Amino acid sequence: MIIRIKFLAVFVSIFLLVPAKDFGKTGENLLDLMPMPEQVEMREGKCRVTETFSAAIEAVPGAKTLRTARAVRRILDRLAGRTGLFFNNNDIPINNKPIDAALWVSFQRNGEIKLLEDESYQLTIIPGRIELKAVTDIGVIRGLETLLQLLMADDSGYFFPAVVINDRPRFPWRGLLIDPCRHFMPVDVIKRNLDGMAAVKMNVLHWHLSEDQGFRVECKTFPRLHRLGSDGFYYSQEQVRDVIAYAADRGIRVMPEFDIPGHSTGWLVGYPELASLPGPYKIEREYGVKDPTFNPAIKATYKFFKKFFKEMAGLFPDEYVHIGGDENNGIQWDANVKIQAFKKKHHFPDNHALQAYFNREILDILSKFRKKMVGWDEILQPGFPGSIVIQSWRGKEALRGAAKKGYNGILSNGYYIDLVQPTDFHYLNDPIPVDSDLTPGESKKILGGEATMWAELVSPETIDSRIWPRTAAIAERFWSPVYVKDVKDMYRRLDIISLQLEELGLTHLKNQEMMLRRLGNGRDTQALKVLVDVIEPLKIYRRHQSAAYTFFSPLTRVVDAALPDANQARVFRQRVEDFVTGNMDQEAVDVLIRDLRLWESNHQKLKPVIAGAPVLKEIETLSEDLSRVAGIGLEAVAFILAGKKVGPQWVEESKKVLEAAKEPRGHAELMIVTAVERLVDACSKI
Amino acid sequence: MIIRIKFLAVFVSIFLLVPAKDFGKTGENLLDLMPMPEQVEMREGKCRVTETFSAAIEAVPGAKTLRTARAVRRILDRLAGRTGLFFNNNDIPINNKPIDAALWVSFQRNGEIKLLEDESYQLTIIPGRIELKAVTDIGVIRGLETLLQLLMADDSGYFFPAVVINDRPRFPWRGLLIDPCRHFMPVDVIKRNLDGMAAVKMNVLHWHLSEDQGFRVECKTFPRLHRLGSDGFYYSQEQVRDVIAYAADRGIRVMPEFDIPGHSTGWLVGYPELASLPGPYKIEREYGVKDPTFNPAIKATYKFFKKFFKEMAGLFPDEYVHIGGDENNGIQWDANVKIQAFKKKHHFPDNHALQAYFNREILDILSKFRKKMVGWDEILQPGFPGSIVIQSWRGKEALRGAAKKGYNGILSNGYYIDLVQPTDFHYLNDPIPVDSDLTPGESKKILGGEATMWAELVSPETIDSRIWPRTAAIAERFWSPVYVKDVKDMYRRLDIISLQLEELGLTHLKNQEMMLRRLGNGRDTQALKVLVDVIEPLKIYRRHQSAAYTFFSPLTRVVDAALPDANQARVFRQRVEDFVTGNMDQEAVDVLIRDLRLWESNHQKLKPVIAGAPVLKEIETLSEDLSRVAGIGLEAVAFILAGKKVGPQWVEESKKVLEAAKEPRGHAELMIVTAVERLVDACSKI
Repeated sequence: MIIRIKFLAVFVSIFLLVPAKDFGKTGENLLDLMPMPEQVEMREGKCRVTETFSAAIEAVPGAKTLRTARAVRRILDRLAGRTGLFFNNNDIPINNKPIDAALWVSFQRNGEIKLLEDESYQLTIIPGRIELKAVTDIGVIRGLETLLQLLMADDSGYFFPAVVINDRPRFPWRGLLIDPCRHFMPVDVIKRNLDGMAAVKMNVLHWHLSEDQGFRVECKTFPRLHRLGSDGFYYSQEQVRDVIAYAADRGIRVMPEFDIPGHSTGWLVGYPELASLPGPYKIEREYGVKDPTFNPAIKATYKFFKKFFKEMAGLFPDEYVHIGGDENNGIQWDANVKIQAFKKKHHFPDNHALQAYFNREILDILSKFRKKMVGWDEILQPGFPGSIVIQSWRGKEALRGAAKKGYNGILSNGYYIDLVQPTDFHYLNDPIPVDSDLTPGESKKILGGEATMWAELVSPETIDSRIWPRTAAIAERFWSPVYVKDVKDMYRRLDIISLQLEELGLTHLKNQEMMLRRLGNGRDTQALKVLVDVIEPLKIYRRHQSAAYTFFSPLTRVVDAALPDANQARVFRQRVEDFVTGNMDQEAVDVLIRDLRLWESNHQKLKPVIAGAPVLKEIETLSEDLSRVAGIGLEAVAFILAGKKVGPQWVEESKKVLEAAKEPRGHAELMIVTAVERLVDACSKI
Repeated sequence: MIIRIKFLAVFVSIFLLVPAKDFGKTGENLLDLMPMPEQVEMREGKCRVTETFSAAIEAVPGAKTLRTARAVRRILDRLAGRTGLFFNNNDIPINNKPIDAALWVSFQRNGEIKLLEDESYQLTIIPGRIELKAVTDIGVIRGLETLLQLLMADDSGYFFPAVVINDRPRFPWRGLLIDPCRHFMPVDVIKRNLDGMAAVKMNVLHWHLSEDQGFRVECKTFPRLHRLGSDGFYYSQEQVRDVIAYAADRGIRVMPEFDIPGHSTGWLVGYPELASLPGPYKIEREYGVKDPTFNPAIKATYKFFKKFFKEMAGLFPDEYVHIGGDENNGIQWDANVKIQAFKKKHHFPDNHALQAYFNREILDILSKFRKKMVGWDEILQPGFPGSIVIQSWRGKEALRGAAKKGYNGILSNGYYIDLVQPTDFHYLNDPIPVDSDLTPGESKKILGGEATMWAELVSPETIDSRIWPRTAAIAERFWSPVYVKDVKDMYRRLDIISLQLEELGLTHLKNQEMMLRRLGNGRDTQALKVLVDVIEPLKIYRRHQSAAYTFFSPLTRVVDAALPDANQARVFRQRVEDFVTGNMDQEAVDVLIRDLRLWESNHQKLKPVIAGAPVLKEIETLSEDLSRVAGIGLEAVAFILAGKKVGPQWVEESKKVLEAAKEPRGHAELMIVTAVERLVDACSKI
């Protein structure tokens, strides 16, 4: 029996045709894939994984198989890691024709690590045999990740379900921006996140390498850049090459960003003569938009960038270079009479026009080194060539406008993962919504998007938890067909993928436990965990409004241990919704009550922990409120279950408590309050 | 009131004079220091840590303060991390005379990263002021770690207790061997372990860089060494320099080991012409003593090593180079007629003499580059100069013998942490036991010791849990006075230090939870954790006897998640001891019973988890046995409490179950069986 489907709204019901027992541990009948492939055909049967499992690669005339061999090696290691199996045969032979191996890999040519390279693959699994075919070895790398996500278990052991998958990405540019400037991120942080990206088929690391807070690359031509502008925290050129090779091995481009002419204090510490006002400059310790800006009116600036980009063009093989171009506040330009005279002389009506001039000079330099320019919205100025790429932090409208003018664009608005918004917000944010009025030609200009991990409020210890698992859902948005957007199923799969990402060394889960132990100062952290499970860090820019964070501020408090999109709270909110809409069986009601009781009694348990650790003082009333709010929830549930009319006074008093509980404490907020409010509202309608 | 003490057997009672409430969280009256300083004077009062906390360094005529500034910066960051405080002042001024800073640091000269450098320091804490003085900046680095360990908390916030500490190490050589050959350990693994070493005042990283399983350093003179001998897993010279600088910043020497003439397959893959038998050679995937050995009878060998060590002498600044020299089985030498002829010609009676010849040639080469030779016991052959250092894997007797012959020695026997033995075994193993018959002069020849982290059975994921926290106790053995050896207090402090080590990025605790999640395959891991908490990996070399481990074997099973010296089991064994000796109050008896009940009921909870994860099948009967053994324990406790005579049949049957439960399963063993046996024995004596 073959069930051929394209993913449509009906795909859930079609899957029901496949015997549930075939789909592993939870009895569910959906594959745990993320991103969801374009096309899946389920077949009957299983391909068993035992100690005899082995792999082989087809020899490709004129192509190299080394990258593929390394990728297969990594997959075998991860497969052994998950199954605990000692594979008898660890050679990965390269052969002219299919040989007797459980996994047979073939491709036609080496892929280039380049925009628009073919990443498609076909994966066929039948009992005893897996065939992975692709046009390029990059397609193979994508398909291997799909294969590993298919691993299942039953009473007899591990297996891959029989299936035929035809897959390719919807968008060619699926990026993650990492900012090692606001806080430095050592190479191992970058590498494990590259592994995470590869696991969910992302293909661009956007490496934001210069900022007010630091210049982070060794520059041989202008060594004062990294020597004076980095506190010693920079990537050597060897490290850069190592990261690029590591990324290439995973089919990932590395695009550097050198943010100019603003956001540039880091550069100007070593080269103050290029600034728009006299120095000296010091590495910026605070955050926000700062004044220091390159002087666009002197030749020395362009001479400098010509040499600078010559060196960097040699270091970074990607055809794109990001020049930032955002948030130049113009204060230094306005304050420099020579720059004003220059503006006048060139008839630039405003600083935007002056920046456009600057950008055009930089564009010329980049073109000389065969690089294409990428920049934030601000670089889009009349008269720029169609080869530039606009990265939109402003929004879909800006991107749409650019596309209509013939410019390539990538969307980042809506993917600012540093703002700690819930996964579904990002997931449902589509670079080209279904109701888009773009022509097919204009739509093609929208190359994809990038999640942006700005680093004001993350350290190497916490960054993974701000990237993962939410970015896996964003990766699906960029890879999978537009109609794959079932939020509930996304969250189901996200939980599974999140655990799998840990095997790559990502610390998004395990560092929370460690941070709680440190906060608990030797005491049992269970009660602290119960609280942290239902709070979230303040969203958007509210945390900056709560305190003046600097480079030196500790990122080790409860708010830092709290995770975005708190799972427990989200599940509770859904349960409440089901409960008040009468959509719940007794067992689920019991769970609802059990959770509320746990929270109600939690403050009593947390009190002695707080008493022993002054760092926890700031969340003491938040913890009290959790108990109080849960108590109200319990009362409300009891009223509803009893069908008992409640007095307006109880409602009013409860609402007052709930309103107060919404107040942030310790830069975090309680995520179950609105749900309990819903319960109270439901009471008043009895 | 000043209480001056030297640490003696009486130190517990003397500490009781200090008000208990002054000693932080647990109400205990011992400082949580490890290693324990040579001399501590407690004073009255506290030095508060608030947002105004700041640090300054005395300008030292003719010395550089940069290393100190970086060390103070790291300590301030860790202090902010633990307290959550936003320090207002993050500058660390360098001043001519003491200025108004909470922490005032001074030293006389820059320390050399060299054996026997002065590491002493004096730390004086009074309310409002901390002074840290040392002869060298390395002493400062040691003292800063002591300071951080002193951090405490009370209702008013964080503080350091008033104290005067005079401290210096007992042994000048306090090392940790890391083996990145059997499994490669990326730079971040090395760096976080250097941080861990610094936290407990260790000062030598012994970097075992070549083996049958791989050659791990970039060699420019003989590039086939790393290109063909490493699978691509090697340290570039830039990385080596980076590690050395990182270590030097923490006052740690880096001594390379290039293991020759045996253990050398990794070299011979690229240079088979230097082997004692014709090649070709392949990187060894299995473990144990292998045949491939350098040919000691040809000039080419020494020409090669002359060039090789010339390059490496330039790369590694330490005055010592370790040449291994162990476990040459002589098989290749015996099989090569030319080598036999060479032996005859030189009148070498046996292969030991031939190896002594080889070593002397290597010694000459090293001397040319001003390096001193270190090697395992085997290098000690008549006629070698006193400058060599013997590292003893064979035992204290061998070391004693060497010292008596005038050779310097370091002890590793008894510190083989890869053998997964309990902490107290290592802790009580003293390089110079109190009953030593060595003269003071001979004793001085014993420079210290090294813990050895051989890597057959560890990966980057698990290595930290095999090193830490046990190595902190070994570090105390090497640093603290000989009479500091209270095992109970060591374990008490070890628990605290273990948590602190996590802030350095060490994964010894957090990776266990991650591994359990992976093993649990998405299911709740609580029951699995209960089991894992009372099992240990097979000790000594028994795990290798249970399966043929190779380079590719997964190290992700339950046995790998299990920790050495399982805390819960150890505590239980102590409780049983207290119980049967009548040394226990009712509350403690309740805890004993609670634990036994938890274990008795655990298999029922673990069963569904095992059913969903085939990788757990191997511990199914172990889990059954835990329940069964705990059940017997409960019965025994009930009999004892009731003073009820038990029949011989019950004893016999119980013992049979217990005997069977001692059997290893999944390469792990249950660590509560002997204690339950003790309970059963106690029953039969009622």
